[in-house]
Amino acid sequence: MRNLLQNILPTEKAEEIISIGKIKRIQPNEYFIRAGEIPRKLAFVFTGLFRYVYIDDNGNEFTKGIIQNNSFISSYSAMISKSSSYFFIEAIEESEILEISYDKWLVLLESDAFWVKFLLRFVEKGFSIKEKRERDLLLLNAETRYVSFLKDFPGMEKRIKQTIIASYLGIQPESLSRIKKKFQS
Amino acid sequence: MRNLLQNILPTEKAEEIISIGKIKRIQPNEYFIRAGEIPRKLAFVFTGLFRYVYIDDNGNEFTKGIIQNNSFISSYSAMISKSSSYFFIEAIEESEILEISYDKWLVLLESDAFWVKFLLRFVEKGFSIKEKRERDLLLLNAETRYVSFLKDFPGMEKRIKQTIIASYLGIQPESLSRIKKKFQS
Repeated sequence: MRNLLQNILPTEKAEEIISIGKIKRIQPNEYFIRAGEIPRKLAFVFTGLFRYVYIDDNGNEFTKGIIQNNSFISSYSAMISKSSSYFFIEAIEESEILEISYDKWLVLLESDAFWVKFLLRFVEKGFSIKEKRERDLLLLNAETRYVSFLKDFPGMEKRIKQTIIASYLGIQPESLSRIKKKFQS
Repeated sequence: MRNLLQNILPTEKAEEIISIGKIKRIQPNEYFIRAGEIPRKLAFVFTGLFRYVYIDDNGNEFTKGIIQNNSFISSYSAMISKSSSYFFIEAIEESEILEISYDKWLVLLESDAFWVKFLLRFVEKGFSIKEKRERDLLLLNAETRYVSFLKDFPGMEKRIKQTIIASYLGIQPESLSRIKKKFQS
């Protein structure tokens, strides 16, 4: 586990962040954060797979993001503004995470400019991912969005339920089936 | 002009950023950044109004953001990754800006941890704005998006052309007219 964090952090810094966190196992369909709650924690994903999902009043699901291992998960805007999360963070597969309380993270952040730069890189990455996602939704048709999904998440079309992929692409599952058939033929 | 930057920065820091920038005037419909170019600059908007706009191969416009004074404008993801901008940054009104070269900005950023924290706050703000925008586009119908627009940008419905507002809401100008009539009656 430690090795995974050491891929993105110097050994000493990896130890620091591990020392303020708790290693936890999360089951598929379990929520790390629920919509409506004020998030007080973030996590680093060692292994597994998560999604960020909006669920509207009629129970319709909109998967806004898919998060793989070696990334952080958080309802970031809500956490920093101390407001309710609008979306759920749900495990898609059994996952192992390093859960970190936001309060402890803030103390770490103040302790060393290194962490501010580290955080900046992650927020920048999140910003860039959101920008590409927005562009795909605004400019591409469903077929091209599916191609973009396959490129962004290699191998995921087998690990993620078709209903979730459809809700990520903003289409009905039936439309996804049609698109996939078209590509197979 | 200086006073405006001093609203968001200590005097000494406002002077620092002014010293690396150039004050410029931009006319309505003029581009600050063009799609296809690798952006090498950002700017602080003293007065005026800008939009970020995607234009697809058929000439359709998608206004992805509206940026008021006292904010920074940049094609940020493209700038930091040294790739081509996917969108245009266009002045909607005659505007006065402080144009800053990205290279000079990077030097400033390295000079003092203050600027890293300052940048982090802006990227976080941008991230949160994008998240709300994404939510509005995914979860709200056109009418509710219009109400959300009026709330986010008070007074703007008179300063911005209807075609641009419609392209921000992701609807046809005729649909916007219908929605506005409904609200008036």
